[in-house]
Amino acid sequence: MELKGKVVVAQGGGPTAVINQSLVGVVLESRKFSQITKVYGAINGVSGIINEDFLDLTQETTHNLERVAVTPSSALGSTRDKPDEKYCQEIFNMFRMHDVRYFFYIGGNDSSDTVRIVNEQAEKSNYEFRAIHIPKTIDNDLMFNDHTPGYPSAARFVAQSLIGLNLDNRALPGVHIAVIMGRHAGFLTAASAAAQKYPDDGPHLIYLPERPFILEKFLADVKEVNDRLGRCVVAVSEGIQDEKGVPILARLMDMEKDAHGNVQLSGTGALGEALANQIKEKLGLSRVRSDTLGYLQRSFMGCVSDVDQREAREVGEKAAQFAIWHNVDGSITINRTGLYSVDYVLRPLSDIAAKTKLMPDNFINAAGNHVTPEFKYYLQPLLGSNMPEASRLRVQKAPKLFHK
Amino acid sequence: MELKGKVVVAQGGGPTAVINQSLVGVVLESRKFSQITKVYGAINGVSGIINEDFLDLTQETTHNLERVAVTPSSALGSTRDKPDEKYCQEIFNMFRMHDVRYFFYIGGNDSSDTVRIVNEQAEKSNYEFRAIHIPKTIDNDLMFNDHTPGYPSAARFVAQSLIGLNLDNRALPGVHIAVIMGRHAGFLTAASAAAQKYPDDGPHLIYLPERPFILEKFLADVKEVNDRLGRCVVAVSEGIQDEKGVPILARLMDMEKDAHGNVQLSGTGALGEALANQIKEKLGLSRVRSDTLGYLQRSFMGCVSDVDQREAREVGEKAAQFAIWHNVDGSITINRTGLYSVDYVLRPLSDIAAKTKLMPDNFINAAGNHVTPEFKYYLQPLLGSNMPEASRLRVQKAPKLFHK
Repeated sequence: MELKGKVVVAQGGGPTAVINQSLVGVVLESRKFSQITKVYGAINGVSGIINEDFLDLTQETTHNLERVAVTPSSALGSTRDKPDEKYCQEIFNMFRMHDVRYFFYIGGNDSSDTVRIVNEQAEKSNYEFRAIHIPKTIDNDLMFNDHTPGYPSAARFVAQSLIGLNLDNRALPGVHIAVIMGRHAGFLTAASAAAQKYPDDGPHLIYLPERPFILEKFLADVKEVNDRLGRCVVAVSEGIQDEKGVPILARLMDMEKDAHGNVQLSGTGALGEALANQIKEKLGLSRVRSDTLGYLQRSFMGCVSDVDQREAREVGEKAAQFAIWHNVDGSITINRTGLYSVDYVLRPLSDIAAKTKLMPDNFINAAGNHVTPEFKYYLQPLLGSNMPEASRLRVQKAPKLFHK
Repeated sequence: MELKGKVVVAQGGGPTAVINQSLVGVVLESRKFSQITKVYGAINGVSGIINEDFLDLTQETTHNLERVAVTPSSALGSTRDKPDEKYCQEIFNMFRMHDVRYFFYIGGNDSSDTVRIVNEQAEKSNYEFRAIHIPKTIDNDLMFNDHTPGYPSAARFVAQSLIGLNLDNRALPGVHIAVIMGRHAGFLTAASAAAQKYPDDGPHLIYLPERPFILEKFLADVKEVNDRLGRCVVAVSEGIQDEKGVPILARLMDMEKDAHGNVQLSGTGALGEALANQIKEKLGLSRVRSDTLGYLQRSFMGCVSDVDQREAREVGEKAAQFAIWHNVDGSITINRTGLYSVDYVLRPLSDIAAKTKLMPDNFINAAGNHVTPEFKYYLQPLLGSNMPEASRLRVQKAPKLFHK
């Protein structure tokens, strides 16, 4: 039985480089079906639904949609709203008023939870309705997904950044700390390992939120690498915590307070600077620098994995297919089926909603300060085609005449 | 008369994305001449010369040189040493011992000054010797150069970053501050303007070291943009100063000290955070973020202007040609001869050495908070081919049924 009515598609949470591929996948596929009366895009996520701020995407050209698809960051705008029951009731009421029968929400696990609640309300009201969550997050932390759209491109940005930071550090040696996004899951920080080509390439040390960060161990690690190579490149997750789950930034702030009085360390660069200060003070090294990769990780224009682009398009397209042909609800997940191939499986929304996947143990080395070859093997196909590579001069040194 | 002997090539100062193009230009061109007995690369700039740390680049393959050419950051390593007379004497002594007759130093105005001093010592000693400075700096601040190799690629990285940050800010509105390299010259910060496609795209405000930064004016500017657009993207040079030439970071540190006691703001993210705090406190805005683009600006792997690549190669090649064929000393400069074409002119080393070019007045708007169309016209051809572009959805809003 065909379910006739409108489609609403929305984008939630932090943007990614490929989130518009999923949007365009939904729109182009939905527009093929005669029972779809209109395809609406909600402006600024769920808040656009309760405000009735819809763009009529039925009237957008295919060419412009394709241009938007290759543009990073949510073209419909986004929101940080996390709807409760009452908010979801308002969403549902608006859907009913507009005869919306299909809802596609592109986002992380919070968005998945919103889809779940709205869907339950439709069921309670005996309103025929299909709601599908489309995965998206650079954190790569959705359950039952081999990986999530947005992660491969962000991972590629991190890898290309670290290739450069390693080369910079090699030319002008010292200690360099790169702070990478990821409050709970370390996948994005771990992607820095893809920058290593030669055995002595950085990042030499990688610290993830999945392992306790022990300051003394960290300093000993840095000293060991610096003594051996005369330089050290470190990648750390912004979310690193101590044994008790206290964020390292908060701990270092307390330490600095004790030592220097009322010190305020907050915002983007603080963790990298606090760690750099520790290295300067405790190890007596002078050239210590830090970079916080910041918002570029999720929005930089022109660094994208083509694998990620295609998959992000496909999850949008599959969402429309599942909803319109198969008449089912759920969350699209990515299954790896070969090296390299994937398939898309629709899972119950409750499998994904409000849960977080962390790095599995076999992706983290025993010392807790780097990744394993298993992780590199997992990551490699996701980075896409034409991954740039650094090369070195490899000739011998010329004979000395004076300092013989 | 053919001058027979060795070539030494070295790289100094901060790396760029194309500095190895110039190195490879020197090596490949020099290796064609029978009077060149060896082509040596000095490891870590001038410090490699006094330590006799040379790589014999005569024995590197052309293929590997081409691979190195597309790798960012000084392949020979770099140095921050700024040689004085005595240091230059040691350089010259080492050249004499190794029968070095040609010296090519790829670097900024400090490197040019080193070449000048070494060259004078050769002249005083009646030692037949050619020394050429090859321009390189992301700051674009060398006199008599239309622009300098390294700048176009860094400018492209900044532009692509700001395209992304603008899109991110559009999806999740607020104030976003991007802090960009440039202590004295604002060219790199100004390049952020290339991110603007639609009239309301950021960066909405651009602050350069060439104009005094007045905090009250800055806050009023941000307020005006935010009131008008509901968001604001700002690009600032790390080197912005007040009317008296005091760096803004130092001023804000003093202000914070007065307000909160002993506050320490130092290192990479501090300026952006201090400005963000001012906006939060004085304008009462809540979502204010900052990014400090940091070392990625000069080393990121995979964001390069092809125009920059070709020109960086050519300045190296021309240096070898000038020295070996024409038997002259000097600094290679880039002249713009058309839209778009350049030629290379050898100028006296004293024209370039230890001088700094700033943004001309006609590149900065009257209010001192953005660039002019003249600057955009100047910059555009430098960014190279296939500059990525953002696109927007452009359909109308759907009619409201409830909030009519």
